[in-house]
Amino acid sequence: MLRIAQFGAGRIGAIHADNVARRPDVELAYVVDVNAEAAAALAARHGAQVSDVATALADKSVGAVIIASSTDTHADLIEAAARAGKAVFCEKPVDLSIARCDQCLATVKATGVAVAMGFNRRYDPTFRSLRERLVAGEIGRLEILSITSRDPAPPPVSYIKVSGGLFRDMMIHDFDMARWLLGEEPVEIYAAAAVNVDPAIGEAGDVDTATVSMKTASGKLAIINNSRRATYGYDQRVEAFGSKGMLQAGNHTATQVVHAGANGVSSDKPLDFFLQRYVAAYQAELDDFVNMVIEGREPLATVADGRAALLLADAALTSLREGRAVRL
Amino acid sequence: MLRIAQFGAGRIGAIHADNVARRPDVELAYVVDVNAEAAAALAARHGAQVSDVATALADKSVGAVIIASSTDTHADLIEAAARAGKAVFCEKPVDLSIARCDQCLATVKATGVAVAMGFNRRYDPTFRSLRERLVAGEIGRLEILSITSRDPAPPPVSYIKVSGGLFRDMMIHDFDMARWLLGEEPVEIYAAAAVNVDPAIGEAGDVDTATVSMKTASGKLAIINNSRRATYGYDQRVEAFGSKGMLQAGNHTATQVVHAGANGVSSDKPLDFFLQRYVAAYQAELDDFVNMVIEGREPLATVADGRAALLLADAALTSLREGRAVRL
Amino acid sequence: MLRIAQFGAGRIGAIHADNVARRPDVELAYVVDVNAEAAAALAARHGAQVSDVATALADKSVGAVIIASSTDTHADLIEAAARAGKAVFCEKPVDLSIARCDQCLATVKATGVAVAMGFNRRYDPTFRSLRERLVAGEIGRLEILSITSRDPAPPPVSYIKVSGGLFRDMMIHDFDMARWLLGEEPVEIYAAAAVNVDPAIGEAGDVDTATVSMKTASGKLAIINNSRRATYGYDQRVEAFGSKGMLQAGNHTATQVVHAGANGVSSDKPLDFFLQRYVAAYQAELDDFVNMVIEGREPLATVADGRAALLLADAALTSLREGRAVRL
Amino acid sequence: MLRIAQFGAGRIGAIHADNVARRPDVELAYVVDVNAEAAAALAARHGAQVSDVATALADKSVGAVIIASSTDTHADLIEAAARAGKAVFCEKPVDLSIARCDQCLATVKATGVAVAMGFNRRYDPTFRSLRERLVAGEIGRLEILSITSRDPAPPPVSYIKVSGGLFRDMMIHDFDMARWLLGEEPVEIYAAAAVNVDPAIGEAGDVDTATVSMKTASGKLAIINNSRRATYGYDQRVEAFGSKGMLQAGNHTATQVVHAGANGVSSDKPLDFFLQRYVAAYQAELDDFVNMVIEGREPLATVADGRAALLLADAALTSLREGRAVRL
Repeated sequence: MLRIAQFGAGRIGAIHADNVARRPDVELAYVVDVNAEAAAALAARHGAQVSDVATALADKSVGAVIIASSTDTHADLIEAAARAGKAVFCEKPVDLSIARCDQCLATVKATGVAVAMGFNRRYDPTFRSLRERLVAGEIGRLEILSITSRDPAPPPVSYIKVSGGLFRDMMIHDFDMARWLLGEEPVEIYAAAAVNVDPAIGEAGDVDTATVSMKTASGKLAIINNSRRATYGYDQRVEAFGSKGMLQAGNHTATQVVHAGANGVSSDKPLDFFLQRYVAAYQAELDDFVNMVIEGREPLATVADGRAALLLADAALTSLREGRAVRL
Repeated sequence: MLRIAQFGAGRIGAIHADNVARRPDVELAYVVDVNAEAAAALAARHGAQVSDVATALADKSVGAVIIASSTDTHADLIEAAARAGKAVFCEKPVDLSIARCDQCLATVKATGVAVAMGFNRRYDPTFRSLRERLVAGEIGRLEILSITSRDPAPPPVSYIKVSGGLFRDMMIHDFDMARWLLGEEPVEIYAAAAVNVDPAIGEAGDVDTATVSMKTASGKLAIINNSRRATYGYDQRVEAFGSKGMLQAGNHTATQVVHAGANGVSSDKPLDFFLQRYVAAYQAELDDFVNMVIEGREPLATVADGRAALLLADAALTSLREGRAVRL
Repeated sequence: MLRIAQFGAGRIGAIHADNVARRPDVELAYVVDVNAEAAAALAARHGAQVSDVATALADKSVGAVIIASSTDTHADLIEAAARAGKAVFCEKPVDLSIARCDQCLATVKATGVAVAMGFNRRYDPTFRSLRERLVAGEIGRLEILSITSRDPAPPPVSYIKVSGGLFRDMMIHDFDMARWLLGEEPVEIYAAAAVNVDPAIGEAGDVDTATVSMKTASGKLAIINNSRRATYGYDQRVEAFGSKGMLQAGNHTATQVVHAGANGVSSDKPLDFFLQRYVAAYQAELDDFVNMVIEGREPLATVADGRAALLLADAALTSLREGRAVRL
Repeated sequence: MLRIAQFGAGRIGAIHADNVARRPDVELAYVVDVNAEAAAALAARHGAQVSDVATALADKSVGAVIIASSTDTHADLIEAAARAGKAVFCEKPVDLSIARCDQCLATVKATGVAVAMGFNRRYDPTFRSLRERLVAGEIGRLEILSITSRDPAPPPVSYIKVSGGLFRDMMIHDFDMARWLLGEEPVEIYAAAAVNVDPAIGEAGDVDTATVSMKTASGKLAIINNSRRATYGYDQRVEAFGSKGMLQAGNHTATQVVHAGANGVSSDKPLDFFLQRYVAAYQAELDDFVNMVIEGREPLATVADGRAALLLADAALTSLREGRAVRL
């Protein structure tokens, strides 16, 4: 029985806790959150104890921790858990600063502990299948990668102000997808962006619409486009074009009902947002983490992956601010 | 806390038990099965007791039973459970004989107990949405209903011999769907059928390919087609055509990946079989049953619905044997 | 240069004349129509002469005739043209009476002249491709054939009164498709029908909604459904299910534009009606007829095919009137 | 009767001549080509005279010219025809040099003659419908435009050497589409490219895979991706994302047949190349030109449009060569 301590009892934390509860071989031991009420509710639902970081990490019977607290606590908690010898699952990002990432990475390496980063899209059945088929050679060599990622609606401006901005908060997922699918690091990046959705986002110093163009040393090209608002739902698509063909990953819908009427033929719009679209991904992600701990396997996404995605986000921001392409 | 006794620990029984386990407000109290090993395994997985029918039904703390044992035990168990005052969920069919159905129906009525029949397709998100939109008037008045239902591969001939035949074992689901969607009883039925898949099925006195045509008093027409073998997976579609348009319910797939290559553009085939296609339906079905018990609501499908579907199956068989349309 | 005399200058006649004009190796010599104005207009557009049947057939330089006049003239014109040694292209049907068909067939046989019947759907690129792939074995042996054929709106009741009824006027196309795809004659047929669209159609002694079920000696099953009114356009689909898979022929649309918005994802409805859907079919049909004459090939659809489809229509009508399955 | 002189009797010239022949109100008077054989064949097919530029332009009865000769003759012929007072339809591009474009534009302006540039995609039913719906406000304000344009196979290297390169020869169509749909000029452009398809293309100084990112003053973003080789056919898609939704223009296929089998569900790949995909566009383009001449309307695409697209192509090339974003 693997005993887990969970830091963070918010929306994502609750999902991870529920997925832990689905497994007969794992037990939620502790829930830690600055919000005492949220911690108590989640702990009660799964028969866990409300606790604090020190107590949870000091418990020898705890084998792993899940970090789903606010971004500014991630690096500290990863380090503390790693030093306590616990396997770690941490929501992205490691930190908004590359320097802090580097530090954290060094600590983790020194402890030899396995740390899995929660890049949930790698576990989505559709994207996972696309990658497996890409790796299996179904389209030959990848030549153009195109990622579309649009949220249904922007978060509150208060969140945007502490988020690190669109590139580090939202496109970070697409940078991770791009790296995962390209199988090679970009060497040049260019970003264009605008405030199209809400002037308040611009006033907060951020953008809400962006495109990024990247190139690898071997000549693979990647383009990403983001918007903070899509009226038709959560738009999450990937297109991989290669020497032998193309693989496209499309959106998911709630039903397969089609209506034909005088105004045309219509079907469901994409699922609302990540909580709906990535239900299966969150389950697979947690299962993979547990299996990683039990079987001593490598995580699918590491702290180094988190750092590499952040590097691209920072470079995109530099490109945008200085109006030029950035070499990496 | 609703305590449940489950009769039958086979494949479908295990699904229901797992769905019971997902709910914090329900507890699996007893598992009963002639196969002691299966009963023990399922009971162990969910912390239930292995027991026998009499003991389980005598326990006053048990509020409901799930019947997922073999078809020939359904009517007896429904009656016993109803007499014991337990709410009942029973897999289709009630029985293969209309006379026995009638008897069972009378017993149930006398006890006043709620009995829900497991017509799982009524709970499928896609079919459910089609019906809601039909009822909401999106296609005006229904005029032509077309149901396609094809299994990936035939069951063993040993099963076919005791199944009651294609109409009572397989098309019974489509008869239920037809009744549910037509909102009106058919008054005429005609069946055509053949042995196209496996001669052994014909030797067992059954058919493996069939079409049925039905008509209601108000002039709604329905056609159903069945095959025991579809190389491309479990084919489950419904098309409702009406005065203002059409609603189509399509197949579900594992991913939304599309491949384009020199040989064409291809996507996933439909999910394998009912265990894959109806995962969400089985969950919704169990939830609906539990809510029915807790809230004292009517079941979505009743013993009378089970009887009515069987009546259509019997009439189809008569039509086939006598080579004529049958009035109902 | 093949010189052609055309009988009938109406809507379909104009299409054939235009398709004749597209070919440099064919010349429209005569146009004959009881409507002098229509004949004059069409003749003028293509530099042909307005004439009468006798004159046109007496012209030795005329190698072929196109019959696109009213149904009641078809058999007479086929016979006259055949006796004059002209190759014939005739719109369906040969006649509404089987006896007259038989007579006509005998006359044609005696003359040895090639007569092609205008079953336009056989030339539609989509249906043609489906049949080629069926014949090529892509789905193994055909087991269930399903044809959906719905007009956007009913014709005037005045037309319905002389049309021969839904089975002989509308479903006749589907009977031809069924025979063409089944590769085998049906041995049993059952029809169900209703008046759902317009009571005036019922008062004229006809139906406007119908389903037909057929069976061949080897066990192939076919179902057809027709409606005189589909709000979403001209619905023309075929589904062929076989031992190795399924082939589906879908509707055609004017564009490939898809819109995603708050209310769902929508695309074009099917093309309006046969003049839009079968543009390519009419061209291919005319080309095939001309090539048949020039190369001395067999027509794709013969008078015998026209007769066989009518036989099914008559049997469907008998089934409907007598409320029973009809053996053929 | 509008009499037309055509310069160029190659593949595209033949298409235009055929589309001229389809109209009863237009007559092909002259065919001019340095290849005497091609000129003679095309002239013969349509009853035109083989001639030379001077003679054709001197004929007062000629009202319009079609220029479909090699790129290096376009500007000269436009100017000569404009001076002779003939309306002009010219295949893209005006010229590969902006300076020559400017000169030509000045000459045309001075004569007051209408010159239509052959940006065929503007006439494609699918793209045209997308633009009309965009202009009609179906997606609110356009925010992200994404264009995918991939040829099935690269042209011979000999052609590539004189083509002006991928940006001026191939992506020029996409630059025109982008300008047409954005309704606003880009102010910044960045290009990334590679030689992925054939090293010989690189040796000829060109690239075969490219992405371009553009931005307008009001904050609209556009991304374009090109490849000289797509194994699955001619890939021509546009996606317009806006404040109220999304419009996507998909590929066209030869049939609507879908096959379902053990390996998945497959449909037709896109049509082969521009001759197949843009059949309807070429017809509409010629009709539009003729109507423009007859009715004295403005051309849909002008010499100024040709120049503006070339400007973007040149800027993309500069961006690629200097590894930086270019301001416009």
